Amino acid sequence: MNYSMIFYIIGWILSVEAALMVPSVIVGIIYGESSAWALVAAIVLCLIIGLPLIRKQPKNKVFYAREASVSVAFSWIVMSIMGSLPFVFSGEIPNPVDALFETVSGFTTTGASILAAPEDMSHCLMFWRCFTHWVGGMGVLVFLLCLLPMAGTGYHMNLMKAESPGPSVGKLVPKVQSTAKLLYKLYIVLSLILLALLLVGGMPVFDAFCTTFGTAGTGGFGIKNDSFGSYSTYLQAVVTIFMILFGVNFNVYFLLYMRKPKDAFKCEEARWYIAIILASTLIITFFIRDYFPNILMAFHHAAFQVGSIITTTGFATTDFNLWPAIPKTILVMLMFCGACAGSTGGGIKVSRIVIMFRTMIKEFRLNIRPNTTKKVYFEGKPLENEMVRSISVFLVTYTFIFVGSVFLIGIDNFDLTTNFTAVAATFNNIGPGLELVGPTQNFGLYSNFSKLVLTFDMLAGRLELYPILILFMRDTWRKF
Amino acid sequence: MNYSMIFYIIGWILSVEAALMVPSVIVGIIYGESSAWALVAAIVLCLIIGLPLIRKQPKNKVFYAREASVSVAFSWIVMSIMGSLPFVFSGEIPNPVDALFETVSGFTTTGASILAAPEDMSHCLMFWRCFTHWVGGMGVLVFLLCLLPMAGTGYHMNLMKAESPGPSVGKLVPKVQSTAKLLYKLYIVLSLILLALLLVGGMPVFDAFCTTFGTAGTGGFGIKNDSFGSYSTYLQAVVTIFMILFGVNFNVYFLLYMRKPKDAFKCEEARWYIAIILASTLIITFFIRDYFPNILMAFHHAAFQVGSIITTTGFATTDFNLWPAIPKTILVMLMFCGACAGSTGGGIKVSRIVIMFRTMIKEFRLNIRPNTTKKVYFEGKPLENEMVRSISVFLVTYTFIFVGSVFLIGIDNFDLTTNFTAVAATFNNIGPGLELVGPTQNFGLYSNFSKLVLTFDMLAGRLELYPILILFMRDTWRKF
Repeated sequence: MNYSMIFYIIGWILSVEAALMVPSVIVGIIYGESSAWALVAAIVLCLIIGLPLIRKQPKNKVFYAREASVSVAFSWIVMSIMGSLPFVFSGEIPNPVDALFETVSGFTTTGASILAAPEDMSHCLMFWRCFTHWVGGMGVLVFLLCLLPMAGTGYHMNLMKAESPGPSVGKLVPKVQSTAKLLYKLYIVLSLILLALLLVGGMPVFDAFCTTFGTAGTGGFGIKNDSFGSYSTYLQAVVTIFMILFGVNFNVYFLLYMRKPKDAFKCEEARWYIAIILASTLIITFFIRDYFPNILMAFHHAAFQVGSIITTTGFATTDFNLWPAIPKTILVMLMFCGACAGSTGGGIKVSRIVIMFRTMIKEFRLNIRPNTTKKVYFEGKPLENEMVRSISVFLVTYTFIFVGSVFLIGIDNFDLTTNFTAVAATFNNIGPGLELVGPTQNFGLYSNFSKLVLTFDMLAGRLELYPILILFMRDTWRKF
Repeated sequence: MNYSMIFYIIGWILSVEAALMVPSVIVGIIYGESSAWALVAAIVLCLIIGLPLIRKQPKNKVFYAREASVSVAFSWIVMSIMGSLPFVFSGEIPNPVDALFETVSGFTTTGASILAAPEDMSHCLMFWRCFTHWVGGMGVLVFLLCLLPMAGTGYHMNLMKAESPGPSVGKLVPKVQSTAKLLYKLYIVLSLILLALLLVGGMPVFDAFCTTFGTAGTGGFGIKNDSFGSYSTYLQAVVTIFMILFGVNFNVYFLLYMRKPKDAFKCEEARWYIAIILASTLIITFFIRDYFPNILMAFHHAAFQVGSIITTTGFATTDFNLWPAIPKTILVMLMFCGACAGSTGGGIKVSRIVIMFRTMIKEFRLNIRPNTTKKVYFEGKPLENEMVRSISVFLVTYTFIFVGSVFLIGIDNFDLTTNFTAVAATFNNIGPGLELVGPTQNFGLYSNFSKLVLTFDMLAGRLELYPILILFMRDTWRKF
């Protein structure tokens, strides 16, 4: 294990995090809030630990998938711990476990909160809380790749693979570093358009920034306790559209950017994703038509909730916990489905589900006619067995962790729907679940132990299991 | 598709079913019940349809896996429809959908009931209802194999593979027909021992027969509304032990019968199965210790419920719906786990879970050290990729059907825990779920549509998906 390289990367992460806290300090100065000092203290601490680690580049450039996974896992853990300090220092979230839960929920773009009344938080800390969504959405190491001067062999690619969601990472352009830069460019441009549309709609400037961070990162921290209920229909509609846009595979935007609209519209995953959204919205609209004054409003709220859940954002305009069983079942299904690979959304990902469905059909065919040798196609290419196997293993691992988590948080003795959807909501990085952790509730009711289990789930879900899990394997720490 | 052979097998199934109804008629004569006529009418109908079909053996002996699967699926469907007729004819379950649900629940050894008061049923129909468990437990086609005179190529093996639970069917002795006979011999001997022990414990003769059928088939139809709550502790303990015994892979009994106790105790699946039962019982005992007068009684009830759920029998001595969250979560986990392959129990099966867990660990190792080439071992033998892949496909298919069913029965607008555990309880052939379909409740509350969905789930679960699903594939019906 190349420890010097891992520490070097963590040093960079801490320095970058210090820089990322600066805007929040500025917000604190504007509003004249004393909590800004808590942020300053955290910045100083990040720099004290981080700067010595990046003083010089390590000589050992060996950097395999194993090193990349461990770096990513540790980066996210260290970043979350340091990011939670301002909340503790300021006393606004005095319990360190709560502060860690909230910060991990931020960086992993989950949006699950332990706060009963987020309105009471100071502006600068609220800004930092929401900003973590935006940072975590595209990935912190991807951001780092844009900055890091060095170019070791396989170094960039392995890091990006370990952090990016989805079964495979496509290099958009030959050089990984350029891919990372391009991704961030697209991310920033889309975020700015959204910000402008929100400001045009009359949203207060502070709210507009926080909402943009949450929507772009598909995070979903509400700055109000009723989440999105009290905003105008226009603002809700804008957010609906942008949540869905940020859940699309960024390859599509890249192709549009390269002026290849034909190829962009051919993207199978995005087409399935849109089809699922449309079908779910229409079915839900039908079942909740009597809950709203007219069918258009029912469609509006159905679309918002579907977009919010499938992209794992987690905003809500209404308490869908009160809806009938079919809409609730659909929303729970979408919690697991998740958005496209290569987007800022979480969940299992549309591509994995489509691939597994096709594999299933193929195997059935094979059983009926053992002599046919058909391959499974996705995005126009035949899938290698390797990929199908790794997806199966992903799903099995996913199930084991899921079941284990539901079991562990059972210790707090809440009802099974609460526990089940609490794990579903954190593991898939969504935010709200049903019943006691429904959209108008929060996770504060759980014990510290359960909060740590759910914090683990959020990290494991965001990093797609593997980087977090290999930390617990003996083989990882053995010499080759 | 060799239709003539499929009809020939269905003819046999109907004739055998007619014969299997005779004991129930005798019970009706003993108790002097008029409902016996409903059974006689069903017998006549079975023979009218069945006998012409078996008049002569078909000439076309081609019998591939496809034919076997289709035969098994149709046999179970036809058998269930004919088996439900006595309930309808007698007017004791007037709604044909209810009668079909109850019969499929019987043959698939699920034990889920739509009856609010099973005590009101006549003895002869109650006997038939419970007897379906015993018949379905070991498999009807396996029974047929003992009788059928012919020996086409691959014919017996393909049938047995399609009907038997578990990822692989081991031929215990070189000839499949001898294996089938041996299995039934072991099954009958174990059942007779159980019957004797129940009678010794003072259980009324009728109850003892019905309980034996339910326990041996791991079915779980209660003959009383409180299931097993009112029987003595001795009787409850006997049933606990035998439920667990019938959930063991029958290979173990075969090895004991062959006087190879060493090999029998080496059976990995059975060891895991016992370990899971012990661990679950101890944990549950700890959490429910205050619900009973002393820790021994808590252990007794924990063991009964664990044995009942993991073997998918579904008897209950107490309303576990009132237990705390951890015991309930464990029971839900056991619902999915199920018993050993090659037993009369349902569920996913211990062997599948162990194999997938090992595969997961192996893949992780492989990712850390791409150069190692370790195989996954089970029961002392390396597993072929083929088997691992077919288990993954099984689990994926399982998940798709599960989610689809929860969605469809959502139409009746009950809470999610009820719907989720209703599907879990029927699909895994257990019987009771939680909340509105808990151990003291019944499935009568669902609409006809939902009952049909759950009936499909019971059949698909018992036949382990494949035979039922290929009925819906176009390829099955195409010419080669």
